[in-house]
Amino acid sequence: MYEELKQQVYDANLALQQHGLVVFTWGNVSGLDRNRGVMAIKPSGVSYDDLTPEDIVLVDLQGHIVAGDLRPSSDTPTHLELYRSFPGLGGICHTHSLYATMWAQAQRPIPCFGTTHADHFYGPVPVTDALTCGEIDGPYEENTGKLIVRRFAGLDPLQMPAVLVANHGPFTWGRGPDQAVENAVVLEQVAQMAYGTLAINHGQNAILQALLDRHYLRKHGPGAYYGQKKTME
Amino acid sequence: MYEELKQQVYDANLALQQHGLVVFTWGNVSGLDRNRGVMAIKPSGVSYDDLTPEDIVLVDLQGHIVAGDLRPSSDTPTHLELYRSFPGLGGICHTHSLYATMWAQAQRPIPCFGTTHADHFYGPVPVTDALTCGEIDGPYEENTGKLIVRRFAGLDPLQMPAVLVANHGPFTWGRGPDQAVENAVVLEQVAQMAYGTLAINHGQNAILQALLDRHYLRKHGPGAYYGQKKTME
Amino acid sequence: MYEELKQQVYDANLALQQHGLVVFTWGNVSGLDRNRGVMAIKPSGVSYDDLTPEDIVLVDLQGHIVAGDLRPSSDTPTHLELYRSFPGLGGICHTHSLYATMWAQAQRPIPCFGTTHADHFYGPVPVTDALTCGEIDGPYEENTGKLIVRRFAGLDPLQMPAVLVANHGPFTWGRGPDQAVENAVVLEQVAQMAYGTLAINHGQNAILQALLDRHYLRKHGPGAYYGQKKTME
Amino acid sequence: MYEELKQQVYDANLALQQHGLVVFTWGNVSGLDRNRGVMAIKPSGVSYDDLTPEDIVLVDLQGHIVAGDLRPSSDTPTHLELYRSFPGLGGICHTHSLYATMWAQAQRPIPCFGTTHADHFYGPVPVTDALTCGEIDGPYEENTGKLIVRRFAGLDPLQMPAVLVANHGPFTWGRGPDQAVENAVVLEQVAQMAYGTLAINHGQNAILQALLDRHYLRKHGPGAYYGQKKTME
Repeated sequence: MYEELKQQVYDANLALQQHGLVVFTWGNVSGLDRNRGVMAIKPSGVSYDDLTPEDIVLVDLQGHIVAGDLRPSSDTPTHLELYRSFPGLGGICHTHSLYATMWAQAQRPIPCFGTTHADHFYGPVPVTDALTCGEIDGPYEENTGKLIVRRFAGLDPLQMPAVLVANHGPFTWGRGPDQAVENAVVLEQVAQMAYGTLAINHGQNAILQALLDRHYLRKHGPGAYYGQKKTME
Repeated sequence: MYEELKQQVYDANLALQQHGLVVFTWGNVSGLDRNRGVMAIKPSGVSYDDLTPEDIVLVDLQGHIVAGDLRPSSDTPTHLELYRSFPGLGGICHTHSLYATMWAQAQRPIPCFGTTHADHFYGPVPVTDALTCGEIDGPYEENTGKLIVRRFAGLDPLQMPAVLVANHGPFTWGRGPDQAVENAVVLEQVAQMAYGTLAINHGQNAILQALLDRHYLRKHGPGAYYGQKKTME
Repeated sequence: MYEELKQQVYDANLALQQHGLVVFTWGNVSGLDRNRGVMAIKPSGVSYDDLTPEDIVLVDLQGHIVAGDLRPSSDTPTHLELYRSFPGLGGICHTHSLYATMWAQAQRPIPCFGTTHADHFYGPVPVTDALTCGEIDGPYEENTGKLIVRRFAGLDPLQMPAVLVANHGPFTWGRGPDQAVENAVVLEQVAQMAYGTLAINHGQNAILQALLDRHYLRKHGPGAYYGQKKTME
Repeated sequence: MYEELKQQVYDANLALQQHGLVVFTWGNVSGLDRNRGVMAIKPSGVSYDDLTPEDIVLVDLQGHIVAGDLRPSSDTPTHLELYRSFPGLGGICHTHSLYATMWAQAQRPIPCFGTTHADHFYGPVPVTDALTCGEIDGPYEENTGKLIVRRFAGLDPLQMPAVLVANHGPFTWGRGPDQAVENAVVLEQVAQMAYGTLAINHGQNAILQALLDRHYLRKHGPGAYYGQKKTME
């Protein structure tokens, strides 16, 4: 019944490793069957080499285990909070990829310096506030989700499928687990490019809004003309 | 009739991936049969893993499809503008390779700091102006081509087979698709070396014109004495 | 009798190479059988390609050879000093990995800028003083061990399983050789992330103590809830 | 008669590629049979994939071809000048490896910031002056050799088996071609470590002379105690 979802989530977790975004078990991808209200997610602390599709854990949107012998990722409450708050999401990905994490640790948003960025993220990639001591000592992972949701007031999560959690690292998402991973790959590239751009020119400005519109809309939305399909997304 | 051209363009697109210059579908190579006025180019948004020589699209110099079931790269109008304006070109390559893109995003030309650069590019690698809002909202890809051509007033495209499009990334070219890719590989190396050179010594100057002449002419032109062939290019 | 220990130490030395932390023979891992007072360590200057489990050298805690035809690593006296002074250690690893060595050469502790760091190291990774001329000219490798021990006054080596030896490079450790290598891998990641964090934001502060506590204790100690096992280390 | 020398030089050239130090044909290694006064060197512009041991060219110390159908490396006169001037050399290597080239382009010697450096290079790695216009327009490659020799006034080439040619890149050497390549690998590591050390701490000083002596002499000379052999070098 959930075999396809589990397979998708398994494939997406492996793709994370194939793209060089994870060391040891420092990453997790989930996928949501929104009709049934069931999320599939990587089990906690299981190495990618040992992982099988059967190991993927199923939980409902309140975090109760639906199926699976293993404990779900410790970041499960963060994923659930995002699925509950952002209706269009079908996949979420969390990594500690090097350059995206540098920006998260530096507590700086990633400015949009070029079309690579504009093709995927509609504006600067936002960084959250730091959690307060009270939020850290409470339900920490769920509060991380709430922190992200708060940061997205006024932002469309499907036009900005990435966030940097301050002092921590990136979360990305999409219509499905595969898109979440794709956005994680793009974010890491964009993070490295922005890092180098500032090293070459400390005062570099973001691109024009017109260029951002052009590139983002060339790939997304009704007028998209990139690729082979009539519509994307 | 165009099988050889399509194969060359296919091979050159794959070489781009083998040299680590592309992520997903972020790159394209074209080749021109100038006698017939037909350009072969990668289809838009097709992954390198799925690409076959048959997928390569043929268009004439006005952009009309000559053969092929797929849509050509969305950058096709840029390629065509360059072929129309620069008579010696037989291949063009576009990537978002990391270090070249950093320089393009920083809107800085790459100074000639050493002989690696001088062996391939006869002077600093130029960066274009940024497109205006009007140029962005018009025929964007064709305007990108015109922007490059404008930047090359007074420059010989065969002695400077690379350009950085501001806020975007590099285009490189050559006598054929393979040379275009070779220049993309060299540009990425040169871009990283220049990046590091400035990090070590912020005030570093370009090399002497005499050294630039010596190295460039050692590999190019009638007096070339590098390699096994009597003449190169 | 020591076959298992030798195999563990052999495996850990190979893992060092597989994780890309060593060039040529620039690294060594040891393991201790504390009941028998016997340490197994890589032989000096033997390439990883030629190394076999039989080559692993056994020495007692005073450095006398117990078994083995080859000379033990020249860093043996450093390892022994650490085992004698830090009771909980069962494995030690030394590398010249790139980013950790940069921090050691810069004589700067690695600040805790994020949760990747906090998951593994309970505070900033300390850097030793430089050795004095007298210490260098005396029993150099043993003095390196004493230098580390001196630096750990007031620190728990099991909560801070890494140190940067000034002008030299990192040592890491753990309950066994595999944990020592794991900490070497993590240290290299954390060192690169911190390097980049400061490049993006020169004035970046360390994370809150509350966040450090939360992450470190999520993975370590009695209340750990990361991974599949009831208790972790 | 020269088969063994040619094989050694062939192996060393391939090792250069295996260590990731060369792109395309940007590197060459030579070896000298000093008794016979014959140098074996890579042919000019031949790709590493096509190279065979038979392709290695033999020239005498005045540069006359002794055997081989191909043209020798265009850097041949530089190699010959070094062999003629530095009696202990049996192998020479030239690359455009990334970090060593950055330092050469920045015209800065690589300070000795740590023991990785001190284990192989007895002091800062020197950088030459820039060639004058007259030297560039004359016998350029031979003048490059003379420039290096001039820089080594007062230096022992066997204790400092590397140099940075200003605006160009590194040359390394050793008792044989394999040592020359080994030193090229080490130089690249040391160059990257020094780059990062200054990024973390701009004012970092070189290590103490006592530490340099200790590490260099631990691996080299009569009192060496690193590795398995009684004496090294």
